[in-house]
Amino acid sequence: MELSLFNVLDILGTMAFAISGALTAMDRKLDLFGVFIIAFVTAIGGGTLRDVLIGNTPVIWMENTLYIYLIGIFTILAIIFRNKIYYLRRSLFLFDTIGLGVFTITGVETGIRNELDPIISVALGAMTGTFGGVIRDILCNEIPVIFRKEIYATACLIGASAFVLLYNFGVNTDVIYIVTSLTVIIIRLLVVKYKISLPSFHLNSGKGNF
Amino acid sequence: MELSLFNVLDILGTMAFAISGALTAMDRKLDLFGVFIIAFVTAIGGGTLRDVLIGNTPVIWMENTLYIYLIGIFTILAIIFRNKIYYLRRSLFLFDTIGLGVFTITGVETGIRNELDPIISVALGAMTGTFGGVIRDILCNEIPVIFRKEIYATACLIGASAFVLLYNFGVNTDVIYIVTSLTVIIIRLLVVKYKISLPSFHLNSGKGNF
Amino acid sequence: MELSLFNVLDILGTMAFAISGALTAMDRKLDLFGVFIIAFVTAIGGGTLRDVLIGNTPVIWMENTLYIYLIGIFTILAIIFRNKIYYLRRSLFLFDTIGLGVFTITGVETGIRNELDPIISVALGAMTGTFGGVIRDILCNEIPVIFRKEIYATACLIGASAFVLLYNFGVNTDVIYIVTSLTVIIIRLLVVKYKISLPSFHLNSGKGNF
Repeated sequence: MELSLFNVLDILGTMAFAISGALTAMDRKLDLFGVFIIAFVTAIGGGTLRDVLIGNTPVIWMENTLYIYLIGIFTILAIIFRNKIYYLRRSLFLFDTIGLGVFTITGVETGIRNELDPIISVALGAMTGTFGGVIRDILCNEIPVIFRKEIYATACLIGASAFVLLYNFGVNTDVIYIVTSLTVIIIRLLVVKYKISLPSFHLNSGKGNF
Repeated sequence: MELSLFNVLDILGTMAFAISGALTAMDRKLDLFGVFIIAFVTAIGGGTLRDVLIGNTPVIWMENTLYIYLIGIFTILAIIFRNKIYYLRRSLFLFDTIGLGVFTITGVETGIRNELDPIISVALGAMTGTFGGVIRDILCNEIPVIFRKEIYATACLIGASAFVLLYNFGVNTDVIYIVTSLTVIIIRLLVVKYKISLPSFHLNSGKGNF
Repeated sequence: MELSLFNVLDILGTMAFAISGALTAMDRKLDLFGVFIIAFVTAIGGGTLRDVLIGNTPVIWMENTLYIYLIGIFTILAIIFRNKIYYLRRSLFLFDTIGLGVFTITGVETGIRNELDPIISVALGAMTGTFGGVIRDILCNEIPVIFRKEIYATACLIGASAFVLLYNFGVNTDVIYIVTSLTVIIIRLLVVKYKISLPSFHLNSGKGNF
């Protein structure tokens, strides 16, 4: 099997989300296999959604055992080094951000390769990037991280739009992959460091639900 | 592109659910892109589930940019007129109900067009109609509205059954679309107005979970 | 239609999960149709995920009305005998376990039949077995049962691995189905009876989320 940069990014995102899933699961005191399963679902969630929506089945991790072995290995590493990793909360946050960045790009690229409209490709990128983390948070019964004030989605949409733009200018795709993945990652890191936030909207309501 | 009544209903449901998603997201104080994303997922959720289950991929919103532009426009309108809309809680509830009604019908119709059994088509209709709202509520960490005592599912199943019945009597499909969509919407409105509820069942339990 | 042992197991799992879904929904005081819908989604969840991931669409319950009628009948039976069933918490727990056992095996078998790698087939089995219960719990806003300390996933992975092993030794598939389904069910029952648990991992954290 020959590895394209697309595959490399996909694998990198898988590893990053596997670690992020394993750490979240350990934080919730799940047992050994619970940790494996959350790591697995977090890692394959985004790519699986991407493949199912586009009709690319069996989904990617079924056709290539590399993914499942990598998830296994990195889950074990996350378990062994859990306290070292955990103290470095920045690096944990970093894994989630790397997963977001690279999966966003694989989603956009899949859209473009299937000749979908650019704006659709951006939406597919955003869904691919965020779904692994969303499913991890839903399974752990937390409010999805996408809603915390970290401009998670914004970083992801800006990176995806940059991809489409550069692609239309004919830039070499390998260069685009790297530039746009880094764009997503750097925006998110900056946003958190400087506590930048987008406007939210006030509803003149007495209280609560409708 | 020629618009059939099927497409018109699909678009109407998309718009209604986009507004309902945007309002729910603003109520939860999400930021700008969070509002967009919840609006998007609520709007496309039902149709996406329908297409994935039937194997109609890439899913409908990927092949036709109309959906994403409409969601964008109606999300912006929902943001601008948020307080006007919000005060009219009835109209908010109405958007959710319209989405339910028309997506139920597009689900049933998809089932019939794919020559599925009538009862399967009804089930597909119910899942298509409810999934957008369910996913909106899960992402916003609320108990899905489907469980509040509004006979949400009942309205939807009655409308879907009416569709299959009328279809078997050979009624013109455009007439069926309109009659059954309105059936779902009117039943739900009546049920809420007159506080009709279906029986629920008492379990003789001391307490809690099993 | 001729019934293979594969179909029989699939139907058995559907029935078991329908009852388990109906009981959970009644426990949450949902109305009549709410009970039906949770029963339906719990029962078809695992098989639907399996079919969607592998690209076997329309999914199995759409092509065969047997599933939907069985779910209807067993939901009604669960409603009628709700207090009798409920007092027997062991038998409730048993239904969930049966569903887990047989759906795990249908997932593994689907993987093998599609010539996927053994480890991928095991993963597909685990997802097929657990997804119905997970979606039931998410819709009822509970933490998925998969995380309670019952080695839910462990039973399921051991059974799935046994399937692959026996298959490679050329054992008759009908024998494998029965042996491995029972393996999953018996392990889970033993584990709960003797309160066996897998290690979980301590994170040296002051508190909470990251």
